[in-house]
Amino acid sequence: MENVLFTANNLWMMICIALVFIMHLGFSLLEIGLTRAKNTINILFKNVMVIIIGLLTYALVGFSLMYPGAAFAGDFIGFSHFGVLLPENGLTAAYSGGHFTFYTDFLFQAMFAATAATIVSGAVAERIKLGGFIAFSVVYVGLIYPITGMWKWGGGFLDELGFYDFAGSTLVHSVGGWAALVGIMVLGPRIGKFSDGRIQVIPGHSIPLSTVGAFLLWFGWFGFNGGSVLSADPAVTSLVLVTTCISAAAGGLGSFVISKIRYKENDLSMILNGILGGLVGITAAADVTGVLDAFIIGSISGVLVVVSIAALENWKLDDPVGAVSVHLTCGIWGTLAVGIFGKMAGWEQFFNQLTGIAAVGSFCLLTSFGIFYALKKTVGIRVTEKEEIEGLDAHEHGSAAYSQLQYE
Amino acid sequence: MENVLFTANNLWMMICIALVFIMHLGFSLLEIGLTRAKNTINILFKNVMVIIIGLLTYALVGFSLMYPGAAFAGDFIGFSHFGVLLPENGLTAAYSGGHFTFYTDFLFQAMFAATAATIVSGAVAERIKLGGFIAFSVVYVGLIYPITGMWKWGGGFLDELGFYDFAGSTLVHSVGGWAALVGIMVLGPRIGKFSDGRIQVIPGHSIPLSTVGAFLLWFGWFGFNGGSVLSADPAVTSLVLVTTCISAAAGGLGSFVISKIRYKENDLSMILNGILGGLVGITAAADVTGVLDAFIIGSISGVLVVVSIAALENWKLDDPVGAVSVHLTCGIWGTLAVGIFGKMAGWEQFFNQLTGIAAVGSFCLLTSFGIFYALKKTVGIRVTEKEEIEGLDAHEHGSAAYSQLQYE
Amino acid sequence: MENVLFTANNLWMMICIALVFIMHLGFSLLEIGLTRAKNTINILFKNVMVIIIGLLTYALVGFSLMYPGAAFAGDFIGFSHFGVLLPENGLTAAYSGGHFTFYTDFLFQAMFAATAATIVSGAVAERIKLGGFIAFSVVYVGLIYPITGMWKWGGGFLDELGFYDFAGSTLVHSVGGWAALVGIMVLGPRIGKFSDGRIQVIPGHSIPLSTVGAFLLWFGWFGFNGGSVLSADPAVTSLVLVTTCISAAAGGLGSFVISKIRYKENDLSMILNGILGGLVGITAAADVTGVLDAFIIGSISGVLVVVSIAALENWKLDDPVGAVSVHLTCGIWGTLAVGIFGKMAGWEQFFNQLTGIAAVGSFCLLTSFGIFYALKKTVGIRVTEKEEIEGLDAHEHGSAAYSQLQYE
Repeated sequence: MENVLFTANNLWMMICIALVFIMHLGFSLLEIGLTRAKNTINILFKNVMVIIIGLLTYALVGFSLMYPGAAFAGDFIGFSHFGVLLPENGLTAAYSGGHFTFYTDFLFQAMFAATAATIVSGAVAERIKLGGFIAFSVVYVGLIYPITGMWKWGGGFLDELGFYDFAGSTLVHSVGGWAALVGIMVLGPRIGKFSDGRIQVIPGHSIPLSTVGAFLLWFGWFGFNGGSVLSADPAVTSLVLVTTCISAAAGGLGSFVISKIRYKENDLSMILNGILGGLVGITAAADVTGVLDAFIIGSISGVLVVVSIAALENWKLDDPVGAVSVHLTCGIWGTLAVGIFGKMAGWEQFFNQLTGIAAVGSFCLLTSFGIFYALKKTVGIRVTEKEEIEGLDAHEHGSAAYSQLQYE
Repeated sequence: MENVLFTANNLWMMICIALVFIMHLGFSLLEIGLTRAKNTINILFKNVMVIIIGLLTYALVGFSLMYPGAAFAGDFIGFSHFGVLLPENGLTAAYSGGHFTFYTDFLFQAMFAATAATIVSGAVAERIKLGGFIAFSVVYVGLIYPITGMWKWGGGFLDELGFYDFAGSTLVHSVGGWAALVGIMVLGPRIGKFSDGRIQVIPGHSIPLSTVGAFLLWFGWFGFNGGSVLSADPAVTSLVLVTTCISAAAGGLGSFVISKIRYKENDLSMILNGILGGLVGITAAADVTGVLDAFIIGSISGVLVVVSIAALENWKLDDPVGAVSVHLTCGIWGTLAVGIFGKMAGWEQFFNQLTGIAAVGSFCLLTSFGIFYALKKTVGIRVTEKEEIEGLDAHEHGSAAYSQLQYE
Repeated sequence: MENVLFTANNLWMMICIALVFIMHLGFSLLEIGLTRAKNTINILFKNVMVIIIGLLTYALVGFSLMYPGAAFAGDFIGFSHFGVLLPENGLTAAYSGGHFTFYTDFLFQAMFAATAATIVSGAVAERIKLGGFIAFSVVYVGLIYPITGMWKWGGGFLDELGFYDFAGSTLVHSVGGWAALVGIMVLGPRIGKFSDGRIQVIPGHSIPLSTVGAFLLWFGWFGFNGGSVLSADPAVTSLVLVTTCISAAAGGLGSFVISKIRYKENDLSMILNGILGGLVGITAAADVTGVLDAFIIGSISGVLVVVSIAALENWKLDDPVGAVSVHLTCGIWGTLAVGIFGKMAGWEQFFNQLTGIAAVGSFCLLTSFGIFYALKKTVGIRVTEKEEIEGLDAHEHGSAAYSQLQYE
């Protein structure tokens, strides 16, 4: 019977792997839809490379850095070995108490790893050099993400402290979000975004593709949060799917209402970002909150996304797809929500959450600034003015995303 | 062992929830592809709002109206309480005889609920006011859908009568289809559709997106029908997937053959609608028919779609995406098919099916007419001529779906 | 307990069916994105028809030809009966030793069957007559694919010999690839492809759609390879998903590196084809190799795709989407890899693999040439010059894929 439960648990995790994988398509489409046609291939190229880099660097070093296991593992950093080495019992129920095999464990975590850089991709779109972004991704996904991940999920100091982050509001989304914030500060805004002393709207070229992207992200979140239960336990997984979906819907509603009140607009992009904000917002607490909690967490996430996007623009920070607002702002909010709502709520937990946010945030700010700055001073990270105006597809890739369509 | 089977069953249902969720993307893309570019954001906006509304109203009242349980439950209407309240044993195998948890139950049903309004969305596209559609959706998804659903799936009078509807040819698809029919009658045709005394073709702006939509709907139907088994029982679920797929293929074949004979055309949109017709057609009887039955039911569905689309146009009813033909015509046909094919076939069953169709149809016609009429007399449901000609995206949303592309 | 394991196994197979189904959407989008807008409906039409044909012919004769079972079954050909007839115990664990029901078995295999013709679809795009292609597909999917499939998976002479092909590098991908090669030879290149004595680039009209296609193919491969385990066995399925994903990533990396070195380009299409090459390459050996093997197999696949595409063009063979390079070149390579890497490696196995490749290749070359030649001499297989220049959508379908967009 244990073996059969092991089969069912592992099966659920494998499905979740596929669902998290397809989130990368979701990110890709969300990003290209919200940006201009002339940079489409470039953004797709980056996102495809990020998956490749994510899987391969995680196989080479990431998994060993994040889950160092019995080998050298301090409170802040650890490492076991290079490569993916099957441990004894790695394919049996003994490996994880009947939850999944070693290979399932590796692949699920590897799919998560690539997400951090994908979040950055959108924020720095339309002006970053391809080579610079790829170099950043290799270091950030291969080293920084697994190190901070180890602090909690690998049993490091945040785990000992009592910090809680169910599926990664902080450990995945904020890790990406902090680097996105640093990226747009180091790069500066796109040409024309803040010209004539005003905030200019640079409309995305395909709202349908953005919408597909948002739907696929929600779809993938069934695996992102559902798989983070690390088993198919009916009680927990089904609760997690409900809180996830209710928060997503509430996030969309929150963005809709606040956009309507504040701007008198029926703004689809804002609702999509509100849904994504709701998803990020519930990610830390999806298994420890109830349906009403999820509704409140999601609604606030949806409002925060709209407020955050406006604030960043006022500060002349140019984030073409709203990545910082969705993943960092709502990531922080969702992490704090663990201490406010549900069965872990309490001041002590709230401060533990603040500590975790501060620790991960400081490390990500420092390291991402270090990487971006080093790249800026060496290979360069921003394309030339001519390249930016004519489009990165023409200059970095020598081709056009829609060869036969005429653009204005 | 029971617990492990419970885990497997619940796992299957959770996957089916994700698959039904992605059907909403399928509907969205099918609809925008078959309509004009100038109304794209509007249609996507409606479909996104419908999911949000569906999940939240179903959480607030729908689930309690549809499955009133031990609380007040008459033969025609019942209600237990507001909100999603976890019952005792809601997370254990005891809740449903080992099939799924309470939360899985809720979420699966909530994903179904939104479908009813999504079907309407396509039929009334390109001319309905956004506010009017949203108001309609709140009432129709929040109240009408769960009330008729209760008649059969909640143990109401149709269930007692012996009416059979496996996954909702009537209870989901026709419920949407009747409202779609009423909607296009109350709204009237799009400007230009029947000008100069002829039926004018208004081509959709993206056949690729429509095709993606149809594929995603078929993909999602694995969960729509597969999940309606309400367990992972190998015998029933595998039969259901086979009858579903064979009927879909046969529907496409039927539409292809009849289009070729009647119009001498290789009409892709018609084949896609034929596939969807085949899917709707088999939905009532997917678990009680065999492979050959499914082929016949699907083939006839495919033919019916083509005939129905032509008939509606002759009656000057303008359904831009063929929603009435797919969901209502084939929904009725599929419901009747339970009495004609497979192991439930017989005159008594046939008349039970007719009774169910008539009961649900009358109620949906009356209520949807009531809602649309009330909205027409108050906030209004049709956009102005100028708005319709210039596009709903510009007027209702202040933006364009493809900002950089030039349109004719 | 056996029954519960049976439920879990069957459940996994049903999910894999859905995943393999969505690969057809992946192929469709990959193909239309890499070709011109004027032939979009035509390509989608072909791919939709191929699924319909695949499911229905497989139900009628294919399944009986491929798995003739107890009925007449020689070493080279066998047949049991027409149609899908449920055997005794077909719905119980007894049917397959607790792995899946008869219906699951049929549907999983039927989804595979259609793939062979879908591969051909891309290679012959933009110039083949619709009727000719459909006729070809009926014969090739209905008869040729199941016959060669029977040689190994139905227990025929290749199985007795010791030939190994886990999920179909040869039996699915090369079967399609050989016919694709014959198709482009019999049809000749598109007008303008080799004009002025040079290889002309004919850019595809939507790189985003191609990218979506490639992502969906990778997503679907979780089911294609994962389901080929024919159970949810945790040890084997999780290994297969890891080798599959690592090989895909390595394929993308291989194509990236070789494109960069050879052409100094950041060519997204090439990376997508490299990923697909990596997926095809690992398909024969996914369950008998390790992570490092998969990385090497995938990397070489990625390089081979680039080399093969260049070679075909030099030989004036026009394959608009790279189908021959991905499915035939990498299919052969992947089949040989079974004899080179992992636990089956050895000279004897290598020669068994060569024998299998030669046997299947000869049969596919002969039969596909026979079918194409017969069609050429009767109904014709190539559209007129006028039709090709003006586009197949206008001539074969009387409509346009993007009715409102202007093309150059």
